[in-house]
Amino acid sequence: MSIITGTRFTEKLKASSGEQWNRVVTHRFTKELAAGTIDREVLKKYLVQDHRFLDAFVVLLASIVANARSLSDRIPACQFLALITAKENTYFERCFESMNCSSEERKTIPDAACTTGFCNLMRQVAQNGTLGEMLSVIVVCEWTYMSWADLVKDVTVREDFTTYEWVDLHSGPEFEGVVS
Amino acid sequence: MSIITGTRFTEKLKASSGEQWNRVVTHRFTKELAAGTIDREVLKKYLVQDHRFLDAFVVLLASIVANARSLSDRIPACQFLALITAKENTYFERCFESMNCSSEERKTIPDAACTTGFCNLMRQVAQNGTLGEMLSVIVVCEWTYMSWADLVKDVTVREDFTTYEWVDLHSGPEFEGVVS
Repeated sequence: MSIITGTRFTEKLKASSGEQWNRVVTHRFTKELAAGTIDREVLKKYLVQDHRFLDAFVVLLASIVANARSLSDRIPACQFLALITAKENTYFERCFESMNCSSEERKTIPDAACTTGFCNLMRQVAQNGTLGEMLSVIVVCEWTYMSWADLVKDVTVREDFTTYEWVDLHSGPEFEGVVS
Repeated sequence: MSIITGTRFTEKLKASSGEQWNRVVTHRFTKELAAGTIDREVLKKYLVQDHRFLDAFVVLLASIVANARSLSDRIPACQFLALITAKENTYFERCFESMNCSSEERKTIPDAACTTGFCNLMRQVAQNGTLGEMLSVIVVCEWTYMSWADLVKDVTVREDFTTYEWVDLHSGPEFEGVVS
C-alpha cells in the first residue's frame, strides 16, 4: 500500500468520494483549531468523542498487524501503535486535565451517533474483515487527518497545546510516513 | 495479569512444570552466551531459528492487543510490539551481517522441529484461542527468557554484541515491566 507515491486504487476511491473529501479536510473546525480560536466547549466535546475512537482504532491497527503478510509489513504498524498509545493518548489525558474534564464527567456523556457507528465499524472489520477491508477503513481515517492537518500546519498558532498539538500529531514527515 | 507481584495461577503453572523450568533457565547455552565463549556456529544456528519466532510472536502479541479488555491493558503490549520490531529485530539483522549469514543462506536452512511446532502454536492460538490461552503462551516465552537472562546478567562479558545484547534484550527493569 503506497498512497503518497500514488496507488491508483486508493486515489480512485478518494476521487469517488467527490466533494465530501474537501468538506472534511477544509471544515471550519480544523481552521479554528489551527487558529487557536476554537470555542473550548466545542473542542472539549470533540475530544471526548474522539478519545473513544482511540481504543477501537488500536484494536483495528493491531488486527492489521496480526493479518499483514510479512514481518516487514507489520513493523511500521507496530511503531505507529506505540506512538498512538503514548504521545497521542497522553495528549487526550493532558487536555482533559487542563479542561477540568474528569473521567466521571466523561462517563456521563453519551456517544454521538457517528462515534457509535464508526467505532462499531472499526471493531467489526477488525474481527471479521479481510486485510483489504481493514486497510480501507484505516486509510480513510489517517489520510483525511493528514490532509486537513497538512493544509493548516503552516498557519497554526502555537499558544495552547490543546489546539496546536492535535495538528502536530497529524502532520509532518513521521505521520506522512505512517499514512504512506 | 501480574507475575512479579505474584499471581497465584501463573506461579502454580510454573511449579507444575517441575524441573523442566530450571533446565531451561540454567542451560549450558545461556551460561556460554553470557560468558561470550559460545561456539559462534551454535549461536548462528540458534539465531536463524529464533528469528523465525519473531514474526509469529508479533502476530500473537498483536492479537493480544486486539483482544485485551481495555485501552490501559493494550498500551504496554503496544509499547512492547514497538520494541521487538525495532531494537530486537535489528539485533538479528546486525548479527546475521556480522556472521556473514545472508538471507539466501538462511532460506536454505529448514525449520527445526521445535521452530515449526512453536510457531504453529503461536499462530493457531493467535487466530482461534481465547485471550487466556494467548497470554499463557506468551507468558511462558517471556518469563523463561527473563529468568535465564536475570541469572546471567551480572556475569555477562561485554565484548561482542552478538552475545551480550541478547542478554540485555531480556533483562533489566524495562523487560521486567513487560513480563509483569
